[in-house]
Formats: sequence, C-alpha cells, structure tokens
Amino acid sequence: MIIVLRKNADRGQVEHLKDWLKQQSVEIEAIKGSHSTVLGLVGDTSHVDIEMLEALDIVESVKRIQEPYKKANRKFHPNDTIVDVSGVKVGKGSFTLIAGPCSVESEEQICSIAQSVKASGAKILRGGAFKPRTSPYAFQGLRANGLELLSEAKAKTGMPIVTEIMDLSQLPLFENVDLIQVGARNMQNFELLKALGKINKPILLKRGLSATIQELLMSAEYIMAGGNENVILCERGIRTFETATRNTLDLSAIPVLKEKTHLPVIIDPSHATGIAAMVKPMSLAAVAAGADGLIIEVHNDPPHALCDGQQSITPQMFDELSKQVGTLYDTVKEMY
Amino acid sequence: MIIVLRKNADRGQVEHLKDWLKQQSVEIEAIKGSHSTVLGLVGDTSHVDIEMLEALDIVESVKRIQEPYKKANRKFHPNDTIVDVSGVKVGKGSFTLIAGPCSVESEEQICSIAQSVKASGAKILRGGAFKPRTSPYAFQGLRANGLELLSEAKAKTGMPIVTEIMDLSQLPLFENVDLIQVGARNMQNFELLKALGKINKPILLKRGLSATIQELLMSAEYIMAGGNENVILCERGIRTFETATRNTLDLSAIPVLKEKTHLPVIIDPSHATGIAAMVKPMSLAAVAAGADGLIIEVHNDPPHALCDGQQSITPQMFDELSKQVGTLYDTVKEMY
Amino acid sequence: MIIVLRKNADRGQVEHLKDWLKQQSVEIEAIKGSHSTVLGLVGDTSHVDIEMLEALDIVESVKRIQEPYKKANRKFHPNDTIVDVSGVKVGKGSFTLIAGPCSVESEEQICSIAQSVKASGAKILRGGAFKPRTSPYAFQGLRANGLELLSEAKAKTGMPIVTEIMDLSQLPLFENVDLIQVGARNMQNFELLKALGKINKPILLKRGLSATIQELLMSAEYIMAGGNENVILCERGIRTFETATRNTLDLSAIPVLKEKTHLPVIIDPSHATGIAAMVKPMSLAAVAAGADGLIIEVHNDPPHALCDGQQSITPQMFDELSKQVGTLYDTVKEMY
Amino acid sequence: MIIVLRKNADRGQVEHLKDWLKQQSVEIEAIKGSHSTVLGLVGDTSHVDIEMLEALDIVESVKRIQEPYKKANRKFHPNDTIVDVSGVKVGKGSFTLIAGPCSVESEEQICSIAQSVKASGAKILRGGAFKPRTSPYAFQGLRANGLELLSEAKAKTGMPIVTEIMDLSQLPLFENVDLIQVGARNMQNFELLKALGKINKPILLKRGLSATIQELLMSAEYIMAGGNENVILCERGIRTFETATRNTLDLSAIPVLKEKTHLPVIIDPSHATGIAAMVKPMSLAAVAAGADGLIIEVHNDPPHALCDGQQSITPQMFDELSKQVGTLYDTVKEMY
Repeated sequence: MIIVLRKNADRGQVEHLKDWLKQQSVEIEAIKGSHSTVLGLVGDTSHVDIEMLEALDIVESVKRIQEPYKKANRKFHPNDTIVDVSGVKVGKGSFTLIAGPCSVESEEQICSIAQSVKASGAKILRGGAFKPRTSPYAFQGLRANGLELLSEAKAKTGMPIVTEIMDLSQLPLFENVDLIQVGARNMQNFELLKALGKINKPILLKRGLSATIQELLMSAEYIMAGGNENVILCERGIRTFETATRNTLDLSAIPVLKEKTHLPVIIDPSHATGIAAMVKPMSLAAVAAGADGLIIEVHNDPPHALCDGQQSITPQMFDELSKQVGTLYDTVKEMY
Repeated sequence: MIIVLRKNADRGQVEHLKDWLKQQSVEIEAIKGSHSTVLGLVGDTSHVDIEMLEALDIVESVKRIQEPYKKANRKFHPNDTIVDVSGVKVGKGSFTLIAGPCSVESEEQICSIAQSVKASGAKILRGGAFKPRTSPYAFQGLRANGLELLSEAKAKTGMPIVTEIMDLSQLPLFENVDLIQVGARNMQNFELLKALGKINKPILLKRGLSATIQELLMSAEYIMAGGNENVILCERGIRTFETATRNTLDLSAIPVLKEKTHLPVIIDPSHATGIAAMVKPMSLAAVAAGADGLIIEVHNDPPHALCDGQQSITPQMFDELSKQVGTLYDTVKEMY
Repeated sequence: MIIVLRKNADRGQVEHLKDWLKQQSVEIEAIKGSHSTVLGLVGDTSHVDIEMLEALDIVESVKRIQEPYKKANRKFHPNDTIVDVSGVKVGKGSFTLIAGPCSVESEEQICSIAQSVKASGAKILRGGAFKPRTSPYAFQGLRANGLELLSEAKAKTGMPIVTEIMDLSQLPLFENVDLIQVGARNMQNFELLKALGKINKPILLKRGLSATIQELLMSAEYIMAGGNENVILCERGIRTFETATRNTLDLSAIPVLKEKTHLPVIIDPSHATGIAAMVKPMSLAAVAAGADGLIIEVHNDPPHALCDGQQSITPQMFDELSKQVGTLYDTVKEMY
Repeated sequence: MIIVLRKNADRGQVEHLKDWLKQQSVEIEAIKGSHSTVLGLVGDTSHVDIEMLEALDIVESVKRIQEPYKKANRKFHPNDTIVDVSGVKVGKGSFTLIAGPCSVESEEQICSIAQSVKASGAKILRGGAFKPRTSPYAFQGLRANGLELLSEAKAKTGMPIVTEIMDLSQLPLFENVDLIQVGARNMQNFELLKALGKINKPILLKRGLSATIQELLMSAEYIMAGGNENVILCERGIRTFETATRNTLDLSAIPVLKEKTHLPVIIDPSHATGIAAMVKPMSLAAVAAGADGLIIEVHNDPPHALCDGQQSITPQMFDELSKQVGTLYDTVKEMY
C-alpha cells in the first residue's frame, strides 16, 4: 500500500500516522520529493482500512498494491480449483454445460426438458423456482413447489440441480439442491453470502449488473472467508449504454478472472444477450475465450415460457449447440 | 401497449395471438401498412407480460405506453404523498434534513452527534448499525448493539431514527426504528421488499447503483403493492465511467421522479460523491432542483470514523450547511 | 413509425399534425383507446424527423419501427458485402488478419514488422502515422513522414496498408493508402465522414467509445450516402464502469451487426483490452462469434514502443496466434 | 509518479530502468518490501510516458501523482481565469446566460429570438449553423448562410455570438464569431484543438458524452498548450444506462472542476436532459452548485424547430427562468 501525503502536511500528524501504522505491524518507508512525500507500507496490509486513510487531512491519495482478496486470489493459490457438484467436476480440464428452463412450470415441463438436455450433453439441470422479477405483478416462480418439481427431475434423470436462492430464509428448502445460485441482484447481499459461507454446498455466484470484477471476487471472498471454498463464478452481462442487447456480455472477464483467481468461470449467454439467436455465437465465443462452462436457458416452447421466453432456445437448438461446443472445446483446449 | 408484428407473420398465429389477448380483456385495433402491421392494445395492460409477447416469432417489438407501476404512479395519484416519520412530515411543503454518522460507534459518539445535528436543524437521526461493506475483512457495524445505541440517542434527543436493514431476519430488531432504510445494494432484494410491504413503518428506498428510475419505481411498487404506501425515494449516485467522484449524482432524477410519482424524493450527497468537500455544493444543487430533503453523513472526527470518513462532514460544517440550505429553500420554494 | 398522443390532446392540433404528415406522403391510421390515441404511420418514414414530432405538445412518445439507415441495412441488401482492399477481400467466406505496430517509428521498424506479420499470414499492414493522444505532450506520430515509411513497407512487401486519418486536411496525403481508418474518437466527425463518402477508397470505421451499434451504422450511412459503399466496421471496446480492462470489448456486437447490416465486421482486441496477454483469448473469441477479421498490434519490442506498448504482442506471439486463428476459423465456419 | 515492480523482477532490468529514468532527469527512491518493490519518482514527470512504463515486463503498475495537465491546472494557476468574450466577462464574480435557438433557421427567427433573450438578460447569443446530426438525412444546418444570419443578429443586438465549428476547414468563416464552440463529439478532435490553440478567440469546449473530467481538462490543455488560454468548459450530460433523460447531467463536475482548474465552467441543461420541462430545475441546480453560467436553447416555436425542439424553452419561459436564476445567484454567491 502506498500513501501519498499532501504537500505541506503537518509533520506532527505525519508522525502520528506513522506510529499508528506501525502498531498495525506494517513497516513504512518514506520517499521525500520536491512535490510530495510518499509512504510505502510493506507487510500484510489487507486489514488496513483504505477509506480511513483516505479520510485523513494529510493524505492526498492511497493506492493498494496487493489485491484485497486472499482466498480467491491466484497468487496464494496458483492451482485451479475444481468444484465438485455432486460428482460433476466444474473447472480445469473439462467443459460443463448447465441447461434448463428459466422457470420451473410443471412436472412434465421440467422432466421432459431435463431428459432432453441430458441426452444432448448437459451435466447439470437449471430451473428457477424463486424468480427475481422487476415487477411485483409478474410471475414470481412456483417457489417451494418448484423446488419439489426440480427434485423429481433430479430423481428421474440423475442430474444435479442448480437453482437460485433469493433470501436467507429459503435456505432450509435447498437441502436437495446440488449447486445454489446467488443471482446478479444479490451479489452484494452480504448477509446471504456470509450464511452460504457456512454451508457445505457449492455456490454459483453471478456477477452483478454493475459489479466490477474485483467486487465479484470480493463477494466470492465473503463466501470463502466463512469456510466454503466451492465457488463457481458466472459472468452474465453488465449494464452499459448499449440497448441492442439486454446487457453487454463481458467476455474479457474470462481471461481477467483466470489471471486473478483459481475459481472456475462460466458464462450465461442467455441472460447476457436476452435474445435466443445470440445464444449460439456468444456460447462459442465463451468457449474460445477459455470459459469452464455455460449455463443456457432451454425451453420446449419458448413463446409460451412464463418468463424470459425470448432468450430461450429449443431442445433441438441446444442439441446442435452442444455438439458445436464440444467440437470447439476440443479444438481450443490445445491452444491454452 | 403496441405490438409491431413481423413482416409476413403467419396469419393463423396472428389470429391466435389476438384471441389470446382478447381473453386478457384488452381490446385490439390493427393497422396494416406496406412494411408492417401493428396491433394497438387498449385497456388495462399492466398484467400483460411484455416479455412473453416479445418471445413470439411473429412479434418484432413491443412498446408499453402505460407505465408498469400503478400505486407509485402520479397519473393515478396526482397529489404529493407526505410521509409521516414519527411526527416528522417528509414531502411537499417542507424540507427535511436527516443527519448522523455513517456507523454507530459508541454511545458517546452517537449521542453527541445526535444532539449536535438536532441543534443545527436535522429532524431525523441516521446511523448505520448493519453495514454493507465490499470486503468481509472490513468493519461490519455494531449490528444489534448499534440499534440499541441508536435507541438511546433517540430517547435522549427525541429524534426519530433511520437505519439500514440488510436482511429480512433482522426485522424483529427494528421495532424501535422509525424509518427503515433499504440500501442501494438491496433495491432489488424482492423478498425483503415484499416483507416491508406488509409492515406499518415508513421505508427509505435507495436507488441501486445501476438501477434506472423506472426500476426504482418498480421496487417502490413492490413495497406499496403489499399495502405499505409510506415510501421515501432516495437518489444516491449511479455508477458511470467517471472516477473523479465515487458515483455520479443524478440530480435530474429529481424532476423526473416528481413528474412520474407522488412519493417524496431525497438526496444523499455523501455517498454519491464520496468526498466531504462536495457535500455542500451537491446539497445546495439538490435543494434548487426541487428535492424534499437530504441525508448527510456527519461525524465529529471524520478521519477516525470507522467507515466512510472521507465523505463525512463535521458538525460545524453541517451547522453552516443547514443554515444555507434553509436560506436556499426559502428562496427556491417560490420558484416551483 | 408510431406516435402516441397525449390524453386530452387538442383535436384541432391533432388534425393539423395529420395533415402535415400526409403532406410528407405517409399514410396514417389511428387507434383510439380509453387511455390514449395512437397514430400509425405507414410508408417510407426515414425522412420524418422523429425529434420534431417528440417536441409537439400533443405527442407523448414516438417509436420508430423501421431502422433510420438504408444503405447499411441488411433488409434492403440481404447479401453480405465483400470489401476489396487492393485485392484483399474482406467479408463473407474469408478471415482477414490486419497487423502491425501502433505507431510507425522508423523504416527499419515498420519494414521488419511488415515482413514478419506477412510471413505469419497477415494480409493488410497497419501502422499509425497520425496518432490521437489524450495528452498534447505525448508522441503524436511521425505524421506525413510516417505515411511515407508505410508506403515503403508496402512497396517492399506488397501488402496493402491501413492507417488513421485525423482530419479532412490530411486527405491528400492518403493517396497511397489502401484502407483509410476513421478512429473511435472521429466516428461522429460528420464532415470527415461526408468527405470520405465521396472518395473511391474503402473505409475502416471504428466504433466510438460510447457509440451505440445504431450510431455506428448511422455513421456508416453517412459515408455510404455519399456514394462510397466500401465500409468495414470495427468494434474496439466500449467505455463502461469496469477498470480491469482499458475498455469492454462488446463481442455481442458481432451477431447484432451481422443481423442488421451486410457490411463486414472486424474486431480490434488490442485497443479493446489494452493488455497484451488478453489479445489471444479475445481474438479466438471474436473468430468464434463470427467476425470477418482482426486488427492486431504487433511490435518487435513492445516495452520500447513509442505508444501503446502494453497492448502489443511480439511477432512470435502473432505467428502462433495466426495459426490458432486459422485452425479455429476452419472449425467455426462450418457452424454458421 | 510511483512504479510498482513485479515480484522477482530481473535485477538487471530494474537497474536499466533506473538508469533510463535518471536520464529523463527524475530522481528515484526505492522501497523494498517483502511482497514488492516500489520506485518513487520525484521531479517533473509530465513528460514521462506512463504507458511505456506499464508495458515493461518488470512493472506491475504505475500511479501518477501529479496531474498530466499544467496550463489548465489550478495548482499552478490558483486564481480563477475570467474569459473575455467581446466584452462579456465569463467566470468568477458574475453569472453569464447564453441563449438562443438550437439552429439558425431564418433572419427573422434568429433576430427576434436574439432581441427577446437579450431583453431577458442573456449576454451571449447562441445558434447553430453547422449542425452535427446522427443521421445524414436530417437537417444539417444553414452552414455558411447560418453564420451570416448570426452576424446580422449580432449587428442588430450588439450581442456577442457563439456557434459550433465542426471542421478545421470552416475556421475562415468564423471571423465574426466571438466564442467558438467545440461540440461534445469533437472534444477529442485533436487536430481541431491544436488549430484552435493558435487563434486569438475564446473557445467553449464541451465535454464529450463519455469523456472523463480529466480527459476534458486534457483537451483544454491541447488548446492552451498552443497559446490560447481563453477556454470555457461546458458540462452537457454524459452517457449512462439511464434512459429517462437524453443524457445524465453530471453536476458534480462543477465542484470537481472548480478544484482542479482555474477555467470557467458553464452548464448546458438543454442538451443534457433533452426535455424542456427539465431545463428549469437543472438550471437552478447548476447555479446552486457553483457554475459560472448556463447555455440554454430558446425557440419562439419549439414544436416547429428544425432540430431539438423538444428541449427548447420559449422566450417567455426563458424570461421567467432568467429572473429566477438571478435571484438564486444572488442568494448563492454569498455561500461560496
């Protein structure tokens, strides 16, 4: 950490700051220049509060050199983490397809889609039971009943299931869920993250619409700090000024995350673009950019899906896409 | 609602759509042109799912004419709502100052700041007990104990108190809180909003970092749809590419909200800018733009505040600002 | 085009508007509903000024159904355009690599890089002579002299050259340039676009940092409206809140553009990310997403490049990347 | 400037870097820590190329402490600059209203609006002759003829005139223009900025839609580096995700600019919001935030304005606004 002091900073206050920093057991070295004085802090500074330092009158600015996350940091964990989702390994060395409808609608719907996507190569079944909808008047999901239907589909197909939790109070209902999704809107629901850090199930953490990559990693750190290190990160589009797509899929997040963290990274092209026809090109691009998997919305009757129909592809389209993804992954994996 | 059909849309499917729409009890009128056919839907369309329509093959695009919110909509409630916070009226005809520290730190701290800001003209005391922090290693607030200290400050000064709830499970602790704040990160925590819609306390709803004004109103609608119509909206800066300020304060949200809704609108210049020196100019600008109040961070010792010190102003600065705000409000209120 | 009238709009004014619209030779059909009246305009509305309509008191909102661009519009030109750059065909059926240094620095530098990238498979040589730099104190390019050095490299290698024009007054110097680049900062320099519409050379039009895809197409339309239909579009990153990369590469622009226009689309991963290590994953992703080519910065000594060294890859890295791109393109082209 | 070296950076290369830096006549001091080594550069570093340093393998990151602009920098020019526009003083100690139509349409139109806004208190007349329009099919302004009509209005009213230049080649036509406007789309048209740095007229520099405040100041520096220090800065809205207003007016840019530069700052509420009804609240807010003036679109017949009618106010509205601005400015100027 580097502290740039204001020109003409009061000497007494500077000495006071240095003493305080030494009490935090960091070492200090100072550079005095004609325009400014700089304090270099060496040692473990992850517990030094950067905002408190910035608030000091004598401080012009502070720059953190070490990343503020540790457990998620590749520097301290150079090897890729592989997350085990009830037997499905997500991460280095394999490419995982997660597929299913936006919302669970009925037993017939979820079971038939599950069988279909399994036959096409999907390894994990997705399906929304609790649905975050912008409008209170829109369909909110089948909720507890939806979770039961997912369990039936799991029993029938043997596929692990992933579904979104929207509130801490729903956690007891998730016992039979294999991978718990934290949605984009809850990426900084810190109480939820802390609670998920204390359970024994893998977490699929989606990037918030306006979250930086570092904030995504800090949210992963919230979960990991509690002891649960089985976190899969998911990029699903960020909010920009562009309106041609629902969000802007930030595929450059893949190599950035691969450099900064050891956690697996998957891509959600369905929510990112909001357009069924764009799921394929963005899926292929994600494979080529080095992603570890995809989570894709598949619906047997997209126009009549109870939500997000316009971004769902049909089982037939998924079947073709799955083959293309497989071919592409085989070609690409030699390149990294 | 207007539905633009694709050129060469299948006739049978179009008739099918029309029948389905009629079942939703909306009337339809069609315009056939050389390039496209348009269906105009008249009647109450707030329950028609725009996303489902957009998913249909035969539909090119859909445009909503009516806003998707009702209870928050000024069209249906032309008169300004005045929210009563334990006797303090927030909204039309008065200007409300809310002030206090970012975090409650100790009894002495909260009580002395409370007395000071009250003397300077603040009507409601703010203070964080549960703190949403990006890092799991940063100070998380005094939590339940912080709420108790706030209650003591309330008892001593008679000021109503506002503080942030971070999770539904904390609600029982908020019995003595006069105004419950939903923070920016929880603006779309829909389960929390639904629960707050069923209680009998006013809610201070902060705009999310990347939430549109319409999304803010939809979140207010979530609370109001449950029966609790005492919602105060708060603009606190949105996330943009600019880095000179922590966020970009969107003051144009004030006149936009004043046109679209009857709910009171207050501004948080402290979190929006993140810089103590900018609290004053942005506070004055908010008054001039027609805001109903301000929520300002005040700390007796900003450099040693446990969080957000760099954006806090001192009680002395608040005292001066409060006078300026009062003078300005008297000048401005004649202009609207 | 659809015009939503305000409730209680003055009848006389509405009739006046209808008459005026009929004079513009568009047909009108009206839908009267309980909440609003809608006018549907049929016929060619590309010359109707949407902003003028929005300004009318009686108008609530206006929605354009037809895109405001014609010559760039795939609806009117369903076949892909292939742009001929002095014999190199850019567009459908081939994948074009453009490579070279950010800035031309010396004869030796540009010629050696040219020979190297040609040997690795690049078809067009890039090199900046006029450099748009944020700071007036930074290196501004070799300017006219740089263009001469590019010509020498062209003479030696036989490669067509592409370089950026920064002002209309420089046009006479571009006689020997094969493809004229309009940089992101000049995407809406309309006087420049108009002038380039009247010449006989292909144009490489880069998307502005905060330009929507529609605005990019409107800028292409400026060039094409003048008669020059040889426009290649280039996505090079948009400005968002994310700071981990210089800009956010919007790869979803590829399928969006492929749907809306017949013009070729290439990707600039070097400027988009600003990081050499990210050029490869983003290049591969662009191929997989369906791009027609790449423009990549290559420098024999990146750390000592006079500008943008941190995003340049070495000739060795380019050679390997070129092979990977070729392999990937062969795999992917069967998939679209 | 602070250079953070990578862990395990090659010693020889580090020594090489230090030698090179010393040749640039900056002094270096090094801090060696357990995790990283930091080089502090003291002296004038404005000519050190930060991008070149970042490109070095041994460098992890670089942080500039001094701002990269000098002539625009308040640190080196603590006193406010007052720009003289043909007798009208813009800057500290007065508040300047600039008003007029978006486009000059006819002699009668521009002269009648000029007389009207002058009577209401405007000091400078605005009017577009060369109009940057997104569509090549939209009205492009009366161009040279528009400049002549502006001159006539100037002759009749004695008001200085401001109008936009779109290309260097138009400069000879601007001889009778008192204040030359560089529009948002040309803020980084560096060749134009350089040329304007060599003339003897004041420049009104508008912030680009996605330009940071620092980039705005760097563009001012381009003009000032050429010798022309009469630059007025104008905030006119930035591009964000919000769609309720055309752009998001960043009023916090006022206090930021006031801290960083000595140049006058004015606000354009008309283009920022794009909505006539929002011109008043945003104008009043700008006054309260400490702006030095406003540039406002006024049209005698907004619905029939040839461009931007929906954001123009009438002369009557301007007259009332001018009085309110005056009253507010008198109240506010005591507060800063």
